[in-house]
Formats: sequence, structure tokens, C-alpha cells
Amino acid sequence: MLDDPLIAALRARAPRSRVLVEEDIPSGYLHDEAAGAPFGQARALVLPQDTPDVCAIVGTCAEFDVPLVPRGAGTGLSGGANAVDGCVVISTERMNQVREVDVENQTATVQPGVVNDDLKRLCAEHGLWYPPDPASSAWSTIGGNVATNAGGICCVKYGVTGDHVLGLEVVVGDGTAVRLGCHTVKGVAGYDLRGLFVGSEGTLGVVTEVTLRLRSRNRTPPVTVVGFFKELADAGRAVAAVAACGVTPAALELVDRNCLRAVDEWKRTGMDRDAAVLLLARSDAPPGAAEEEGRVLMDCFNGAGATWADVSTDPVESEALFEARRLAYPALARLGPVLTEDVCVPRRHVPEMLARISDISATWEIPVANIAHAGDGNLHPLIRMPSLDAAATVRVQHVFDEIMDAAIALSGTVTAEHGIGLLKRDGMRREMSLAVIAMQRSVKEALDPRGIFNPGKILG
Amino acid sequence: MLDDPLIAALRARAPRSRVLVEEDIPSGYLHDEAAGAPFGQARALVLPQDTPDVCAIVGTCAEFDVPLVPRGAGTGLSGGANAVDGCVVISTERMNQVREVDVENQTATVQPGVVNDDLKRLCAEHGLWYPPDPASSAWSTIGGNVATNAGGICCVKYGVTGDHVLGLEVVVGDGTAVRLGCHTVKGVAGYDLRGLFVGSEGTLGVVTEVTLRLRSRNRTPPVTVVGFFKELADAGRAVAAVAACGVTPAALELVDRNCLRAVDEWKRTGMDRDAAVLLLARSDAPPGAAEEEGRVLMDCFNGAGATWADVSTDPVESEALFEARRLAYPALARLGPVLTEDVCVPRRHVPEMLARISDISATWEIPVANIAHAGDGNLHPLIRMPSLDAAATVRVQHVFDEIMDAAIALSGTVTAEHGIGLLKRDGMRREMSLAVIAMQRSVKEALDPRGIFNPGKILG
Repeated sequence: MLDDPLIAALRARAPRSRVLVEEDIPSGYLHDEAAGAPFGQARALVLPQDTPDVCAIVGTCAEFDVPLVPRGAGTGLSGGANAVDGCVVISTERMNQVREVDVENQTATVQPGVVNDDLKRLCAEHGLWYPPDPASSAWSTIGGNVATNAGGICCVKYGVTGDHVLGLEVVVGDGTAVRLGCHTVKGVAGYDLRGLFVGSEGTLGVVTEVTLRLRSRNRTPPVTVVGFFKELADAGRAVAAVAACGVTPAALELVDRNCLRAVDEWKRTGMDRDAAVLLLARSDAPPGAAEEEGRVLMDCFNGAGATWADVSTDPVESEALFEARRLAYPALARLGPVLTEDVCVPRRHVPEMLARISDISATWEIPVANIAHAGDGNLHPLIRMPSLDAAATVRVQHVFDEIMDAAIALSGTVTAEHGIGLLKRDGMRREMSLAVIAMQRSVKEALDPRGIFNPGKILG
Repeated sequence: MLDDPLIAALRARAPRSRVLVEEDIPSGYLHDEAAGAPFGQARALVLPQDTPDVCAIVGTCAEFDVPLVPRGAGTGLSGGANAVDGCVVISTERMNQVREVDVENQTATVQPGVVNDDLKRLCAEHGLWYPPDPASSAWSTIGGNVATNAGGICCVKYGVTGDHVLGLEVVVGDGTAVRLGCHTVKGVAGYDLRGLFVGSEGTLGVVTEVTLRLRSRNRTPPVTVVGFFKELADAGRAVAAVAACGVTPAALELVDRNCLRAVDEWKRTGMDRDAAVLLLARSDAPPGAAEEEGRVLMDCFNGAGATWADVSTDPVESEALFEARRLAYPALARLGPVLTEDVCVPRRHVPEMLARISDISATWEIPVANIAHAGDGNLHPLIRMPSLDAAATVRVQHVFDEIMDAAIALSGTVTAEHGIGLLKRDGMRREMSLAVIAMQRSVKEALDPRGIFNPGKILG
């Protein structure tokens, strides 16, 4: 191994990087958190600190014709960061410097390894706010968020990661660092290559710097509206009513009975266990307006037949309610392995989609619980894997596939915010026409002609 | 001409289209509104009604190896719709059907020839709102807006056209109609080809259908804040103060002395002719909150040294103030030919950029007036062309180029919302590295391998 010319070249040319070889690579660096996605053995793991080293690493991989798999914190759920045999894994975790917070211009320029919550904290010190809030925000990095175009709870009002990316520095296939996008909030010079790299899951290059658009920090506590519903259809009508009511909530989250029970069994929350669904909405409008928005949202819940609904302006109570939402996934996960879905349908189809998921679950006798960013129509069915034997795995795969098919049938998409990675390549082929897949492939070949970046992901 | 096999094929294969040949083509179809941009003589003008005809037209052009120049209403300002010699111009003006307004889901699906204001009116009937509001909204079409990623006054709060495009149907180089993007508000399946086509100025295909994201219509009149400033620097500080104040205005527009005087000379508005700058801000927050936001915005104006500032909740007065903003361009244009710039800088650089424009204007002795979407840092210097003789044209070109260079030097971009077209190809080459230009070119070649779509635009 000491004689491996690739390793020697990486060490010589990227002197500020840590380079680990096969047996020394912790296995956690070989995959993300996607249940059941295959991964291989890397030839090296490289942890660079700066852009020149990334240029050297990419250039070296190109020269040796070795595939390169970029990764952030590895919290992805589709296998997008999984190693392939013989590859070089490049982790951006040591590229964790915030280059600049431009308070007047409300932008931040950061290295890709900065953790989402760390950036949020730093912004808050300057009276600023970086909205995108994936559930992984305590661990996931901005680079990883850019690679998957991560979403979260705030998207219904504030948009996804890509809506906050003004500019990128990326290292492309010949080891050159290029700047895409701009530092301004508007810009239409040429094709939107910035947008093309957002969500490209490391298949076009390595992101080495990101310029983000920020917002002013909201200094008043939000108003939270909670509603319990006996029937899924009632909650669905409430979601539709919110969409039409003229108020854009800062969050509109759904937690179904299976999740509510798992949370209650774990934490003894005392929440209504007979309710079919909990809906949580939030207004972060200015003082006065937020209370009014809260009343409008509660009217939507009551009008749709909520068995109980209330408005809270108490930040502690509000936090406790959203905590129940956040605990849904770990509450399920403690009961056994969970495969997380991520589909999106036009929001008026949310109740129909939930009904179809329930049917699919019954057909295959696989329990499925649901959390959803309901205001966006983005559902996360949590598929519980009863065991890891082959027969159960086949049934779980059927559930996974049929949920994607149901989303497609309802004019939806197979992934709203987790990405294609390995797990959803078949789903993407069912969602898109062959002509569009061919266009996708031609873009990949145009920008990564050597095919060294994250092979096998997205397009297979 | 009757024997032209291309014309015969177009007529036979696209039977629901109007086909005009050389001498019958009105000259207005050969160019857009960019002053001084060259244009050629088209071999045919085709006006299709539906997607199958567009497929037939594109397929026929590909077969005959004839370039195809798509156009909407021709209100562009960069020459992006200008004909090249021997091309087929395809106008989408007869593809003006609204396919669907989905009230519950807050989306609209339209043909590309629907006029922006017509869509706004139709949406309003359903309690909905389509925000993007380019100055051309009374004439420009959604297809043209998508092709240039058009902006407008609302962008500071609501974003540009691309932020409202969920899905596209486009006819690509082999005459196939494909669907890009999705019908949901989130979606990350594969590369963002939808985003790549937005702003691509007809160089990658012909947009035949657009699915747009809508918002609820605001039923309360906006609050308008007006401020006059003696010095550009004061107005610049006011813009920076607004950016940092925590309120996102629904508009923040700047009109300089040259524009104010031209409007006053024309319409006798009685506005302060000694003021260097007028700033106009708007809040469309809910009742109560809007008044509070208005006060915050006025404090920003006063704190920066406004000579006079006031808040108005009277819709008539508010409309009159924004009318002065809208009249600035026609007021200048009635004094002689105007070349419209469109640069964008980080918003804290707005005063510095205005100072540099003033210097450039003085150096070349060419009068330049300024209107700006100041809240976005997007300036529209209006370059008055003193005469059309060669010497003056050279000076005007220097002013045009040096304004772009100044924007680049201040970390800005050469075009925020008008596009590259013909006029800004040199500017784009100065803004981007050769490596990025090469990436742009490789994307064009990947998606339009025959090079039939709008040749010479963007990349030259």
C-alpha cells in the first residue's frame, strides 16, 4: 500500500490534506444513512482543508482515472455518498471555515464543511438567519445540503437550499476551480450552471465554497397552531384550506397516528392517541399579524373538522409541539430499521396520497408511518423493516416502489429533498421520459466527460 | 418562393400554423427592442397554435438544417429574439391559451404566448396572484419571460420568473416535446433541466407550456413610503438600512434626478426637482403589520438623511408615486433614443455604482439617467444616444461597456433580468472565466447538438 502511486501522488500534491488508505478508513466514511443501499471499499479517504488541495486531488484522480466520491457529513438518505470499489472518498469536513458574513448585503460565504446549525448560530449573532432546516441540521454540512438541494420545515414559506445559493466555487473534472452564479440576488448571464450543480449529488464536481443569501433574524417568537383530526381526509382538507386562505405559514407539518403512538410510547407526551393525524402550523409574521395569522390558520383547522385545535404564543409550548414532530423519526427508528421515503405531490393530493400509502402498507403487511411537510405536499412515509430476511426485504422494496408509483400517478415526484442517489434511480426512470433521461445523461457527459465524479449515482 | 421546399414542408407538416415568407414578414418580427442590435432577414415566420405543430416545425428545421429563432412579444432589450439571415422565426403569440388554473394547488398551466398581465387578471378572478412584473407586463408573454428569466419590481420580496416556474414542456432539437421539472413545489429528481431552460433565451429549445406557481392575492391595499434625498450617498445608505432593518419591502425602487426631471418636464408632477434621488418602498404585509412596516421603512429613509419622507396608505396616491417610476423610461425615450443597461451589484454597492456611472457619463459626455430596483442592487442606467453618427455611437458603446466593467469590479453581474442576447456577449466574457464559458458551451452543445436554436445568442 505504501507503494501505491496514487496515494503517494495525493500525499505529495495535496500536502495540507489528511490521506487515509484502505484498512485505516473508518467504515462510516463509506456510506450515508440510507438503509440497504450498497457500498464498496475505497482505495483512499482524503480530507482536504482548502480549494488548492481539492484541485490537486481531483486532478490526480483524473490522471489516475480513479473515481471520486465527495461527501459532507454522510447524513444523506439515498446512498448518494456511498463509496464505490477502488474510489477516492473526499470528505469536506475539515473545510469548515466561514469566510465572510456580509451583514449589510445579507450574504455568507462558507466552505462546504460548515455545519448547517453552526452557520445558523453565527448568523444569529449578526441578527441574520439562514432558513434551510433539514432534520439533519445539527450534523449535516452546507456542502451536503447543496449537493442534495436539502429542504426542511421552513420550505413552505422560505424555499429550499437552492433558493439560498447565490454562487458556488466548484472544482471540475480537470482539477480547475471555477465560480458559478454570482454575489448578487439577481443574475441571468448565461445558462444557470449554479442551479445545475445544486442537487447534482457530487456527480459534476466538488463544491469548495458557497455564497448564501441570508434573511433578517426574526426577533419575535412564532405563533403555533395545533390541530388533531380523527380522519386523514379531514386533515387533508385542512391542508388544502391553509393553501387557499391567503396566509403562507412558516411551517405546516403533519404527523400521523403511527408516529404519534411511537412518540407517546417513548416519551409519554400524553397526546391524543386516538387522533388519526396531528397538524402543526406556525406563523412568524410580525407581532400582531402573527396572532391574526394564527387565528386564520386555526379557522382552517376547525373548518376542516379538527377534533381539537388551539393557538399558542408560548415559545416553550410551541417548542414542545414541534419536538413531537422531530421525535417521530427517532421514535420509529428505536423500534427497528426504517426505510425513509421522500415523495411529493401537489398539496391537494396529500389526503389521497396518504390513503394510497395506507393501502400499500396493508397489501404488503409492512407498517408505514407518516410525517410530512404537508404544506409542500412532501411526504416522508417511514417504512418499518420487520426483519432483514430476504422475503421481508422484497416486501419492503415493493412498498418503497409502489409509494413512488403512487406519487407519480398523482402528478408528483419520487424525491422532494433527499435526492436520487442509489435508491431512487429506478424511480427516476419511471418518473421521466427516456428523452429526458437522455438529456440528463448528455449534461453529465458534457460536464464530467471522464466520468470520474460519483459514478453510478443519479443516472446509474 | 412557392417552390421553396422548406416552406412547403412547414405548411404540410404544421397545418394549424400560419406560415409567412420573406417579403410578407412584418419587419417587427425580425428584432426585439434592443437599440442598435443587428438582425437579419428570415426565410419564414411561423405562428403555431399548438405543441404538435411546434414539434413539426422544429423537426423540419432540423431536417433542412435551418436555424430557428423563437420569440414571444419581442419586448426584449438585448437582441435575444433578433432574426439571423435565412432563419425560421417562430412566434408563440397564437399559443395563448391558459390550460388550467388549479385554485387549490395554486398553480397555473399556460401556453407560452399568454401575456403576463392577462394571466395576472385571470389569476385575480380566482383570488390568486402571479407576482413577476417586468415593465413590459402589458405586452410581454410568459414564454418570453421564461426565456429571459424576467424580473421586475416585486423581485425584492417575491423573486424572479424562474422562482415561479415549476415545470416546462419544451420541444428539443429532434422535434420531441419533453416535460422538465414537475407539478410540485419541491423536487430534486436529477439535474435541474427546468432551471437550465429558464433564462436560456431560446437557445436550447422552444417552450410550449409552462406550469407556474401562484400566490394568494393580497386583498388589502399596500402601504407606500416615499423619500427624497439630496445626495446619492444618502439614498444609498437608506437602501442599506432597509436591507438590514428586518423588513423585506414588496418594492424598493430608485429614480434619479435625470429621470425625475424628464418626468416632471413631461407630466408636470411638481415633484422635488432639486432632489438627487427619489426612493419608493412598499409594504404589502397584512393590515396593521403593513403600517408598522411602513414606519420602519420611513425611519430608514429619515435616518439616512432624507430631505422629505412620508408614508401613504391611500391607494390613489400610492399608484401616482409608482406611476412616476414607471414613466421614467418613456419620459427619457421621448427625448431621443435610449440604450437600456441592466447591471446588478451587491446592494450595499448601489451608491458606489451610481457614483461610477456618473463619472463614466461625464468622461464620455453622454447623459445617463438611472432607475433601479435598488432593493436587489439591480440598476437600469438609461444611456441617451445624442445622435446616431459613428462618433457618438462609439462613445455610447464605451459608456455601455464601462458600466458593465464597473459592475463586475463591484462583484456584480452584467445582466440581472434582461439577458445576454447579442448586446452583452462581450460583457459575459468579461464576467466569466474561460473555463466557465467552456462549460456553458458544452451544455449548449449537449442539448442542441445540431446548433439550430437561436444561433449566435448568449455564446456568440
